[in-house]
Amino acid sequence: MILLFTDFGHEGPYVGQMHAVLAQTAPDVAAIDLMHDAPAFAPRPSAYLLAALIPRLPPDAVICAVVDPGVGGDRAPLLVQADERWLIGPDNGLLVIAARRAGHAAFHVLTGTPDRLSASFHGRDLFAPAAANVARGDMPDSRPLDTRPVGAGWPDDLCEIVYIDHYGNAMTGLRADRLGSRVLVAGGRRLPRVRTFSDCAPGEAFWYENSSGLAEIAVNQGSAAAIFDLETGSAVKLQ
Amino acid sequence: MILLFTDFGHEGPYVGQMHAVLAQTAPDVAAIDLMHDAPAFAPRPSAYLLAALIPRLPPDAVICAVVDPGVGGDRAPLLVQADERWLIGPDNGLLVIAARRAGHAAFHVLTGTPDRLSASFHGRDLFAPAAANVARGDMPDSRPLDTRPVGAGWPDDLCEIVYIDHYGNAMTGLRADRLGSRVLVAGGRRLPRVRTFSDCAPGEAFWYENSSGLAEIAVNQGSAAAIFDLETGSAVKLQ
Amino acid sequence: MILLFTDFGHEGPYVGQMHAVLAQTAPDVAAIDLMHDAPAFAPRPSAYLLAALIPRLPPDAVICAVVDPGVGGDRAPLLVQADERWLIGPDNGLLVIAARRAGHAAFHVLTGTPDRLSASFHGRDLFAPAAANVARGDMPDSRPLDTRPVGAGWPDDLCEIVYIDHYGNAMTGLRADRLGSRVLVAGGRRLPRVRTFSDCAPGEAFWYENSSGLAEIAVNQGSAAAIFDLETGSAVKLQ
Repeated sequence: MILLFTDFGHEGPYVGQMHAVLAQTAPDVAAIDLMHDAPAFAPRPSAYLLAALIPRLPPDAVICAVVDPGVGGDRAPLLVQADERWLIGPDNGLLVIAARRAGHAAFHVLTGTPDRLSASFHGRDLFAPAAANVARGDMPDSRPLDTRPVGAGWPDDLCEIVYIDHYGNAMTGLRADRLGSRVLVAGGRRLPRVRTFSDCAPGEAFWYENSSGLAEIAVNQGSAAAIFDLETGSAVKLQ
Repeated sequence: MILLFTDFGHEGPYVGQMHAVLAQTAPDVAAIDLMHDAPAFAPRPSAYLLAALIPRLPPDAVICAVVDPGVGGDRAPLLVQADERWLIGPDNGLLVIAARRAGHAAFHVLTGTPDRLSASFHGRDLFAPAAANVARGDMPDSRPLDTRPVGAGWPDDLCEIVYIDHYGNAMTGLRADRLGSRVLVAGGRRLPRVRTFSDCAPGEAFWYENSSGLAEIAVNQGSAAAIFDLETGSAVKLQ
Repeated sequence: MILLFTDFGHEGPYVGQMHAVLAQTAPDVAAIDLMHDAPAFAPRPSAYLLAALIPRLPPDAVICAVVDPGVGGDRAPLLVQADERWLIGPDNGLLVIAARRAGHAAFHVLTGTPDRLSASFHGRDLFAPAAANVARGDMPDSRPLDTRPVGAGWPDDLCEIVYIDHYGNAMTGLRADRLGSRVLVAGGRRLPRVRTFSDCAPGEAFWYENSSGLAEIAVNQGSAAAIFDLETGSAVKLQ
């Protein structure tokens, strides 16, 4: 199974062009859109979001992650083995938190040159072909990364909003199971922990462990993002 | 074939996480996004929309429907056999109109306990695994529902707008084949029935039988929703 | 492989209903969403966009293209062989540029009558079944088109914006490899050609060859569409 994680949005031909490459190269492998609205141009919050999603994916999943503001520049393309999973994406920190949380991780640099490499769409021309080949067991050419990956110094958890969902709920980069019943402060408001939405009255604000294990700030039947003026990158404090 | 019908939107990881579960559990079954912008938090209009979509689906389709404002509370998870199709979703009325329109329907409650059940995402943790198992012929544990399902008293057709599409067309919860050439009144305007858009001048307002059999209010090359100030839940009258 | 190219948007049941038809008729063929936000109601810019996307698709791809403001009227449904690829869609110009750029193209009119043909959704009822049958090698009934297809007189390249993407980049209908280092003028600004984003300072405006071979107007880390007030159909001049 190949899962795509990008900031491309569902608009335009980009996701479809990646799927065409995957279906042509690895026709027998399921190709799934994990998400395409990762924080745009922002590998750091994206890294914490991706890391939170991975434990629920199949143990042999191949994840093709593309949040790549440096496309066309000289950042290295990575192939990371993280336990039995494979992560493919740019060396800009995007994969580093997921790799750190694995029992074992090994960083490699993809060294092959695609037949046709556009300057602006390495997702289609470089990362998707590599992911398809990994998924069908044909390992692409690579060498061990001989430097520290970008993001090696980033914290284990991120005290920031990393994603605002469809309902206005605001995910933080903090793992809930590290927080106990600590209070979060965001948008100037102290927010207690509750188990879930149905434990609160409509309009009540709180944080809870979301379905990916992150601390998420929410308002029952309301938009926490709108009410507390939160966006990706907004600071969150622990009390 | 498994079809997903939710109010999750295409944003975020939710739909992708459901697909990862389906592909892992039932890798040989096609999994299709029927729609993900059903009326949010609103099982009642969603029920009429879903019921209208079902007759065109394959006779052995498995439909996994999640519009579930009560997630985490005590509403029962249902497995409904409706003719040769299977419907999986919460007992909040979402499945009840589709079941009523089938020649034969039997309501069951899913009784198994998933390995990992988050408080907020039963779509991924409970309904998708059940749908995948049904689709591959491995029936999940269940017992007959011993009460009337929620929504058992709802009308056969709904005099409300149930969906506004991409173009601003406003679907009602009324089946067109019950209406003959009756006039609809919405947003203060009397709307005659026509066969299709190309029968009208640009700017003209009307209703017609849409491709799912519902009476739909439209303006040729315009947005009926914007012009008549319609939204999901707006009342429609029959004359 | 079947690829869908439409202006339906991802909202609503339309794309899902097409996939249900494809999966039922051609269950062993991959069905991919190439894009669903082609210029709405606008076959002409859509034609140049589609033509630009095709060279990267597999040589035996089947493309089902539906931008069809005349649905329900009398425009013919076409089946076009373009080299080894097949194009299916309405005779309104949508397929004509892609066909012109093929080494060999033959236009046919689909003559079969679907079992159930709604007045407003030929994508589901006519074009998707035809595409599925072509993809599985069961050629649908057709006759040669005995007139010039609509759009036969359109230019080889289009001096207009044909698509605004997620980031506000504005694609033109001009193939970059025909332009050398000519300057484009759009929104009153003279724009030089550069290789890619990372060759420019943040805030700088330029055009470059995008990943589909089109001249695309962009601002590094900004929205060209917003800054230069561009939308689909805006004129572009060559200097």
